[in-house]
Amino acid sequence: MTIADPWTDAPLAVALGDPAGIGPEVTVKAWLARDKEGLPPFFAVGDERSIGAVWAGPVQRITAPGEALQVFDRALPLLSVEDGAEIVPGEPNLEGARCALDSLEVATGMTRSGAASALVTGPVAKSQLYAIGFTHPGQTEFVAERCGIAPENVVMMLAGPDLRVVPVTTHMPLRAVLDSLSIEVIVAKARTTARGLQRSFGIANPRIAFAGVNPHAGENGALGTEEMDLIAPAIAELREEGIDAFGPLAADTMFHARARAGYDAAICLYHDQALIPLKTLYFDEGVNMTLGIPIVRTAPDHGTAFAIAGRGEANPGATIAAIQLAAQAVVQRKAESCPA
Amino acid sequence: MTIADPWTDAPLAVALGDPAGIGPEVTVKAWLARDKEGLPPFFAVGDERSIGAVWAGPVQRITAPGEALQVFDRALPLLSVEDGAEIVPGEPNLEGARCALDSLEVATGMTRSGAASALVTGPVAKSQLYAIGFTHPGQTEFVAERCGIAPENVVMMLAGPDLRVVPVTTHMPLRAVLDSLSIEVIVAKARTTARGLQRSFGIANPRIAFAGVNPHAGENGALGTEEMDLIAPAIAELREEGIDAFGPLAADTMFHARARAGYDAAICLYHDQALIPLKTLYFDEGVNMTLGIPIVRTAPDHGTAFAIAGRGEANPGATIAAIQLAAQAVVQRKAESCPA
Repeated sequence: MTIADPWTDAPLAVALGDPAGIGPEVTVKAWLARDKEGLPPFFAVGDERSIGAVWAGPVQRITAPGEALQVFDRALPLLSVEDGAEIVPGEPNLEGARCALDSLEVATGMTRSGAASALVTGPVAKSQLYAIGFTHPGQTEFVAERCGIAPENVVMMLAGPDLRVVPVTTHMPLRAVLDSLSIEVIVAKARTTARGLQRSFGIANPRIAFAGVNPHAGENGALGTEEMDLIAPAIAELREEGIDAFGPLAADTMFHARARAGYDAAICLYHDQALIPLKTLYFDEGVNMTLGIPIVRTAPDHGTAFAIAGRGEANPGATIAAIQLAAQAVVQRKAESCPA
Repeated sequence: MTIADPWTDAPLAVALGDPAGIGPEVTVKAWLARDKEGLPPFFAVGDERSIGAVWAGPVQRITAPGEALQVFDRALPLLSVEDGAEIVPGEPNLEGARCALDSLEVATGMTRSGAASALVTGPVAKSQLYAIGFTHPGQTEFVAERCGIAPENVVMMLAGPDLRVVPVTTHMPLRAVLDSLSIEVIVAKARTTARGLQRSFGIANPRIAFAGVNPHAGENGALGTEEMDLIAPAIAELREEGIDAFGPLAADTMFHARARAGYDAAICLYHDQALIPLKTLYFDEGVNMTLGIPIVRTAPDHGTAFAIAGRGEANPGATIAAIQLAAQAVVQRKAESCPA
């Protein structure tokens, strides 16, 4: 699946994230690379000053997403959401967090309405968001709620060029992971993953590999029982539904190049099990994609990087990959709902 | 540190491991690559028939390690340890396990005595070894005992071209890891690692990076407390001893190329945390090195691979790397004990 050329859909919405983080810079760099990387038209959502602080190039304000289609060739289209304070790269504050949240809200709404074809979200500072009353663990759960989907029913998939991983649990202590895993939650995450791969990637029969929790996937119970008690029964249930699920595999030997070719997504049980292989291989190009929601949403899989904000050093690889992946999903979903 | 040329030490002993596994094949392939890879003289320890079953090239029996130095250029030197049964690649049996254990015993003894300069151990079938009464978890603990060192005082380090990892715990359920970690065991493993890097790698002030256990290294307690309760105090204790220990770092962002350049070894808390990055990056060239024992011991970090034994498909990369790493350690230790 390549990105449609010419682009006949609505433009993509890119929320800039925290105005003091690297979100504005990597979005600008993505726009500058639009021809080389074959990016579809997109528009930024945020405060124009956050871009002006790091770049002197052409920005053109738009008032409706559709205008971005005409503007995109010659300027970065921007739908303005204003920050109530001064913006200094690398110096976050609560007004900036409010601006990031407003930008997310606006961009999500435009994607929900169809005015934007997909949502790409820039990095935010969670601690700042929590301080202004944000009650969601992260942007994924916020977007899920705005789409009317319970957070436990969405899936966070991390993708690199030849690896897709899904952590069944995310931001919780490792001990809590072992206490909270259940056949039901494993089945639900894998089912959503399989459907997402069909719908957004056009993979008719996705191959879903499961990692074990324990060393060597437990060695038949000698090194732990979660594989026998939880993962194997979950796999059996999925196979009964016709999903090509298999494993559990020893987690240490399932992520090298030859092994990666054997599946379309790896279901991992905890955060680091999924994120270590992805970020070890693709630190600068990892994409976070939300599955199980009605819209297409991706994000670069990195943080605000306040320490380097404003220096021009930020790598736009993950943002470019997030825009490309979102665009491919838009094209794929359209092909599925409107077959030629 | 490069391998000394000409080699002026005793030859290295390579125990062939299970006669029905890929150990004999990868040892032969390493011998064939001796010039290209700059390997020092070594001799095989095991049953000649296990080599004959996979290779028709020249093997010359020796009766003492020193003879290998003259033989090595023209034939694979072999110190014979006989298997009491027929040898068929891919079909392990208890007699083969006895042969593997005897080979390990002989090769370890010769290295202990100084007749061999280092010990390289081929892959064994643990379940077969247990069936003949082997009471150690693996070869590492056996070698430690023969060296008079308690198993808890040795360190298993896994090494690839630009990554060294040390799992504080190894083959135990993940839940047991969380219940068994202590400041003492973390400090002991890191201290042995630092000394091993000084002694066998010539790194005067090794940089020792610690991984956290929980996502994002616990985020100051929000996602788990092992970092504050165990790892940070262990790091403080090590720093008081003058060891350049630091962290804990988020485990998912410490193994990409730029991050790896920031330390000489990563201390990981559990098996998969160490093995996932190593095997994701270096599946065919990972080396297992035992630190904390008086001899140099390495091993290719893979199993017997009975499924492909006898087909000629086994990759000798890890065995070649294990021989190279052992040779470098021999040269380094000699330089340290006998400065010019």
